[in-house]
Order: sequence, then C-alpha cells, then structure tokens
Amino acid sequence: MIPNLQNDFRNLPIGIFDSGVGGLTVYRALHEYLPDEHFVYLGDTARVPYGTKSLATVERYAIENSRFLASHGIKMLVVACNTASALALPAIRAAVNLDVAGVIGPGARAAVKATKEKRIGVIATEATVSSGAYAQAIAKSDENVSVIERACPLFVSLAEEGWADSIEARSIAEKYLKDISAANVDTLVLGCTHYPILKRVIQETVGQNVRLIDSGEATAEEVAALLKEQNLSRESFSQSANVRQLCDDLDHFYVTDAATRFARVAERFLGSSPKVLEAVEVWGQDELRKS
Amino acid sequence: MIPNLQNDFRNLPIGIFDSGVGGLTVYRALHEYLPDEHFVYLGDTARVPYGTKSLATVERYAIENSRFLASHGIKMLVVACNTASALALPAIRAAVNLDVAGVIGPGARAAVKATKEKRIGVIATEATVSSGAYAQAIAKSDENVSVIERACPLFVSLAEEGWADSIEARSIAEKYLKDISAANVDTLVLGCTHYPILKRVIQETVGQNVRLIDSGEATAEEVAALLKEQNLSRESFSQSANVRQLCDDLDHFYVTDAATRFARVAERFLGSSPKVLEAVEVWGQDELRKS
Repeated sequence: MIPNLQNDFRNLPIGIFDSGVGGLTVYRALHEYLPDEHFVYLGDTARVPYGTKSLATVERYAIENSRFLASHGIKMLVVACNTASALALPAIRAAVNLDVAGVIGPGARAAVKATKEKRIGVIATEATVSSGAYAQAIAKSDENVSVIERACPLFVSLAEEGWADSIEARSIAEKYLKDISAANVDTLVLGCTHYPILKRVIQETVGQNVRLIDSGEATAEEVAALLKEQNLSRESFSQSANVRQLCDDLDHFYVTDAATRFARVAERFLGSSPKVLEAVEVWGQDELRKS
Repeated sequence: MIPNLQNDFRNLPIGIFDSGVGGLTVYRALHEYLPDEHFVYLGDTARVPYGTKSLATVERYAIENSRFLASHGIKMLVVACNTASALALPAIRAAVNLDVAGVIGPGARAAVKATKEKRIGVIATEATVSSGAYAQAIAKSDENVSVIERACPLFVSLAEEGWADSIEARSIAEKYLKDISAANVDTLVLGCTHYPILKRVIQETVGQNVRLIDSGEATAEEVAALLKEQNLSRESFSQSANVRQLCDDLDHFYVTDAATRFARVAERFLGSSPKVLEAVEVWGQDELRKS
C-alpha cells in the first residue's frame, strides 16, 4: 500500500452502530480508550428496540446500518448493540468489506478472565438471552464455566427515564437478579448497552464481591489493541495534545428518527449531547430526511 | 347497491392495527361490544414501539399498515394505537378508501361526558402527549375543561412483563401519577393501549373517586353505534347464537415480527392466544415471510 493512502485509511473514523441510544455507553468507552480516534455513530432509533425482535429482522436492520456506515468511509465497524452482535455478526461480515467487532466476544472473554469460581451470570435482552450467544462465547473460552442468564427488559426504560438510582430500580433489580445471586456467580456480564447506566444499583444488588463486566468497555479494550497491532491507529496531530471532549464536532452522530429525543437521552447518559447530529434513512442508503 | 353485494360488504371483517401487542385490549373491547363481527388484527411488532418516534415515521408506518389491511378486504379500519391515532389519522384517511376510527376522539368524548369538575388527566406515550391530540380533542368537545397530561413509558414494559400487580408497578404509578393526583382531576384517560392492563394499580393510585376512561372501550362503543347507524353490522348466522371465544379461528392475527413472543404476551393480556397467527411484511405489501 502506498504510504499516504495508508495514512488516509488510518485517519478514517471508526463506525459504531446501535439500535438506538444505548450504544452511547460503548462510544464513551471507545472514546476513553482511543482519545485520538474519530467516530461515526448510527442509532437506529426508527426501529429500536432490537431485543424483542426476531433473527431475520435483526439481521436485516443490522445489514442496512452497516452498509450505511461503510458507505460513509470508516476503517472499522463496531457493533455496539448486544442483540445485533448476538444474532447478526456473520450476516454483517458478509455484507461489508471491513473489520467488524461485536461486543459479545470481548464481554465473554473478559468475564472468563475475571471469574475465579467459574460461575458467570449474564443479563441481556430477551433476544440475546434466547440466542445463547454469551453462553457459547464463554464455553469457547472455557468450557468448564457455568453460565446463568436473565433478560431484564425494564432496565432499558429505567435508564432512558433517568431513574437509574431510584427506589423502583432497586426493587426491580432485586427481582431480576434474585436467581443470579442465588447461583453464587462471582462475575456478571452487563450484556445490554443500557445496563451500565444502572451499574451502581446492579452492583449493590448482587454485592461488592461480584465483578461486573461491561461488554462495551471490554470491546473498547480489544479494539484499541487491534488497531495498535494492525498499525491502524490514527496519526497523532498537534491538536491531539488537548483532551477531546465527548460528543465534540469531530464525532458525527446519525439517527434514523427522533433526533431531539436522542439528544435528550444522550445528555442523560453522557452528560453532553452531540454537536453534529443528523437524521437519516438507512433503508434506501439515501439521506432523504434530515433534521 | 345490489343487496347481496351489500351483504357481502357487511360480512367483511373489521380491520384493527396497532404498533404491537397493546391493541389487543382494543380488540377485546370490540369483541365484547360486537360479538357477531369478525376481526383482522395487525400488530407491527417489527417496528414497535411508536410512542418514542417522530411524526414522519409514525405516519409512514401507519399508512403501510392501513394499506396492508385494506388490501385484505375489511369494511372498516380501527386504529387501535393511540400514538398512530394522535399523529397519523389524516394521513391514513388519505391513504385508504374506508371508514377509519381512531381511539383519541372516542376517549376524549367519553372523558368529557364523565367529568363533573371539568378537570381531566391523560396518560399516554411521549409522542401522544407531545402531539397534544387529547387536549385538542377534549377542547373540541368542551373548551372549559382543563387537561393535565403525563407520559408513562415504564407502564408498557410492566404490562408486557406480567408485572401489572407488582409492588414495583405501584411505586412507579405513584411517581407518574403524583402531579395528576395533585391536580384533583375526577377523570383519567388511559391513552395507551397497554395501560388498561394496569387498571387496578392506576385506580388504587388515583383513588376510587377518579373515573378511568379506557379509550379502547370508548372506541368500541362508538364503532358499534356507527355500524348500526350505517346498517353495516354483520348478518347474524345461526352459529352466532353461541358466544364466540376471544382469538378463535374466525379472527385472524398478523404480526410483522416475532409471532411467538406476540402469542405469549397475548396469553398474558387476554387469557388466550390467537388460533390464526401469521408473520408478514407490510412494507412491500407482500406476504413474503411467514411463520
């Protein structure tokens, strides 16, 4: 490869897609591990949530999102959505000619590394739990680990309502996590992008001895290592000496619907909302609708 | 009209669409008021929920659903989804050549009829509340009524989880309904199809003196009167002497995704699940995918 072409490629942003606003927790982790990188984020807010939908539908949505980001010039694609990672990674890899990282593999590997008792809990959407993707990925790393899984759909609404620290969140967490606590796991995977918003309540419910694994953070760590290994890190320019803020104008955000609501929830999740935010249609690969 | 053609038309089913499973509460009410009628129900489970989405998107989805049902031969269309009724009725009426009933008008009229103190509360999705559709419809009936509205997004997940009578539901209801209770309303509109599932908890929270209006029930009452008035009721056949069961094989159910999950939640909402249930694609007006 001609050197300056390679530099051009290196300097492309990293693409991230999620079913909606939850993937911002993965964006935050990537931003922290890779302060020199630029990001393009797509939230499929017109069709969120994916967690109650079928394999065929999640695959179709995931392919459309991936092609949209690929057509915008990215050097790598991170599938921030656990459900899409669990159900659609092979379909996405077949659809785009890019390195694709999902969040399930990194989350599973980090959990296997963390568990001493070889008992791991996983909380995720209905679709992710039904897919068995975490259990399979954990077994691939260590087949002697036992896994207990539970879907926690109300956590998503609690996070988006800004009720993460409410007494209701505590009570619901106790209900959802009862069987997992009884199973004496020493490690718990937060297998949905919304769940890190409820980290404090979840930690208090399962007790301080249980290690929480944020799949988004585990993914950011692996992506950082991969970029370094493949010599694909963005060049450090002089301005990189300044610490970049989350959601500054170098990171571009797209949503498929309701940009105002996205900005409001982003503010709640990240403490800041995107400077560059645009509503697009991904189903025709055209940007017909802008907000 | 030639008499037997008119009879053919009268004997067509009534179409109902909703963003998902919530509209089953409207189906139940219609079934109760119109035991001789047959129904075709479409739940847009591939794109549920509508309540957090924009006007343009809700309109597009609603038109696709309406055209799908119209092409299946119905004598009338009931838009069970409050959000679609609030945002998309004009677009739906322009798209199909049929009588179209939404749930907002009937709910508003029933509330105005019920209120003595001229103070009405409305609980609904974010999109319905933002649209101001209930406040406008109430003002149209009686401009001296004051209206207080509140979005209650967690009620949907609570209903679908089967936690309608839980202590968590009570605590969340108290939080959501605090301002409405403080406003001393004497009538409260359940402006989302999921909310009747939480009727007991909502009634206990606002107190027995507040009259709850189920927009679905109000709609069923108006639709029954309309059919009678227009002489469009189905002919009573001998077998109609037997009371029809909910979800028997005369009522057909379509979903755009995840039929198994729909059947499970239907069982929770109605005590029975559809005998005839099929997954379809409505975005191309083709039935490409069946389950």
